[in-house]
Amino acid sequence: MRLKEGEEAVRRVLGEIHRRGKVGTKDLARATRLPTPVAAAIRRELEKAGLVARKGGAILTETGKEFVEGVLGMVADHRKTEGSIGVPPVHEPILEKLRDYSSRRPSANPKLDQAHATPETALRRALYMLDGGNLAGRNALFLGDDDLTSVAAGLLRVAKGITVVDIDGRLLEAITGISEKEGLGIECVLHDLREPLPEELRGAFDTFLTDPPYTIPGLELFLSRGIQALRWRKTSTAYLAYPDKPPLEMLEVHGAINWMGLFVDELIPRFNMYIGAEILGNTTSMFRLVVTGEARPIITGPFRGGIYTGELRPTTRVYKCRCGEAIEVGSTKRFTTVEELKSRGCPSCGKKEGFRLAERRRAD
Amino acid sequence: MRLKEGEEAVRRVLGEIHRRGKVGTKDLARATRLPTPVAAAIRRELEKAGLVARKGGAILTETGKEFVEGVLGMVADHRKTEGSIGVPPVHEPILEKLRDYSSRRPSANPKLDQAHATPETALRRALYMLDGGNLAGRNALFLGDDDLTSVAAGLLRVAKGITVVDIDGRLLEAITGISEKEGLGIECVLHDLREPLPEELRGAFDTFLTDPPYTIPGLELFLSRGIQALRWRKTSTAYLAYPDKPPLEMLEVHGAINWMGLFVDELIPRFNMYIGAEILGNTTSMFRLVVTGEARPIITGPFRGGIYTGELRPTTRVYKCRCGEAIEVGSTKRFTTVEELKSRGCPSCGKKEGFRLAERRRAD
Repeated sequence: MRLKEGEEAVRRVLGEIHRRGKVGTKDLARATRLPTPVAAAIRRELEKAGLVARKGGAILTETGKEFVEGVLGMVADHRKTEGSIGVPPVHEPILEKLRDYSSRRPSANPKLDQAHATPETALRRALYMLDGGNLAGRNALFLGDDDLTSVAAGLLRVAKGITVVDIDGRLLEAITGISEKEGLGIECVLHDLREPLPEELRGAFDTFLTDPPYTIPGLELFLSRGIQALRWRKTSTAYLAYPDKPPLEMLEVHGAINWMGLFVDELIPRFNMYIGAEILGNTTSMFRLVVTGEARPIITGPFRGGIYTGELRPTTRVYKCRCGEAIEVGSTKRFTTVEELKSRGCPSCGKKEGFRLAERRRAD
Repeated sequence: MRLKEGEEAVRRVLGEIHRRGKVGTKDLARATRLPTPVAAAIRRELEKAGLVARKGGAILTETGKEFVEGVLGMVADHRKTEGSIGVPPVHEPILEKLRDYSSRRPSANPKLDQAHATPETALRRALYMLDGGNLAGRNALFLGDDDLTSVAAGLLRVAKGITVVDIDGRLLEAITGISEKEGLGIECVLHDLREPLPEELRGAFDTFLTDPPYTIPGLELFLSRGIQALRWRKTSTAYLAYPDKPPLEMLEVHGAINWMGLFVDELIPRFNMYIGAEILGNTTSMFRLVVTGEARPIITGPFRGGIYTGELRPTTRVYKCRCGEAIEVGSTKRFTTVEELKSRGCPSCGKKEGFRLAERRRAD
């Protein structure tokens, strides 16, 4: 192990495999907050040492189990956080409909950072809003909705009004079709949120939910438009889906939320699950945000910068340190920027200078 | 209703009673984020209107139920967030011991903002740490521990080391006694955290948990000491218990956490329950914090300011507006300071000036 944090990293990897029983490399990387290549390297080393085996994912061998429990003193997990907010059986008919509508919606457009949430996720979101007193009798706004959360909310038939704003005409057509067939009265507004919020949507809603592009400008833009859409900013509630990113990026995410005058009231990891796309282990956290009296949209005019993942971080860069170490820099890597790499130093030799750009490649 | 936000406030009060079935005024105020007198006034108005009755707490009458469900379109709650992390039956013997030890610990010293968590809470905290991979085989630090969380953690018998730092000698004596009897090896350090962290505790721990004084300086001080105690600051985990305060104060709490380079990874409302003291509805939230590479203790030297509730906000003040409205100002009130009252205006007439101090009283 050439890592400075070798022992800690190995412990995390072993702990996570122990906790889950079986885990793939991407999930392992995400859960341990290690870069994927590092997690993969550790897994390989542990395989060589006979502690870990592969069987559709990393598992502990008998020796591995003894080591983890006997030497490291870990005990098996007793609790599942995932899906703790389940779908009660009474809502099974709604889930059936959602499954059907979901399977027929237009395919996800990755250029718009679309990635479809599962029908269960859409319904659990709607129930979570309901549970917080923010759906029944309320005017709810969905800022971008390829997840069909608006349809799930509509099918609960308790909201006063449901509005969807989206840039994707195909999607709005699908939602309008469902809404008409089911009599949900969902209002669809075709609008690019990079443009100012339409006048008629301002100050018109009790709450909003968004699963925005997973970039800081995307987050700031969607939250800004959402804040402007609220009727009452003192203690309204907003819902945000956002993935686990590297620590320093999460620090920035929370900083932006704070700066805009919102605070996290509840945060549920792995709440949202997605179909297909292998984005960040296919789950995101659910943030329930309180919109305080100090809330302010930090973007009010048109926004001309990039907001989508592809626009902002098109490549992973590989830097070579003088010591020979190759270090990946990019949004899903341990170092988001070369500045960060320089300030924290080479993970192998610790030097803070002398990095050479060796390779650029499209982000996977 | 003379409130500007009358409709919204009434809706929240009705929604909360509907959701809970029966609820006391303090809980009602906390859950609706309304000042207690306002929540009480609304409850009285609703009683007069025949929508609410009192029966060991506010309940909905039949008319009230019809109104809430028929007119406001609310539906009953389907989920309990409280206690979702329960104590598995296998740990019942530990809980029994904790109940016994808890009943014999020294009484809470309110001058030190002590308020004893329930034995169940202490054990659920320890299990939560365990679940996150932060107890088994780890060196854990408890910054202040009149809750006996260290004992709960010790009784799980998985940690590498457990250390308690507290200003209260009586408490440390009790913990030492329990530790010796049970063979837990808990290390107790008598120390006032307003003084710099003892050299031997710096960089020595994998994680820490604190239920600090519920003031911004108290929070900043305890987190600063905790950060200094950590061995590895890149993605370590810290646990913080903190109550629901008024929105602008919560914004400040989250701002301080962000400023110190930590971010919220999971936030569970109403996780911690307390015996006796009627503090903020007797529950606090549990924050699981990630300590990033940017983490820094913002207080490193001795701290000479106030940190306890009594030191910082000894009184509630009542201001009279020219319109006749009496407005309470204080840490647990809607307006934390008179500056806030002036900037937001009288809740009755909206004027932003002409307030006269009518009364000062010790905070309850």
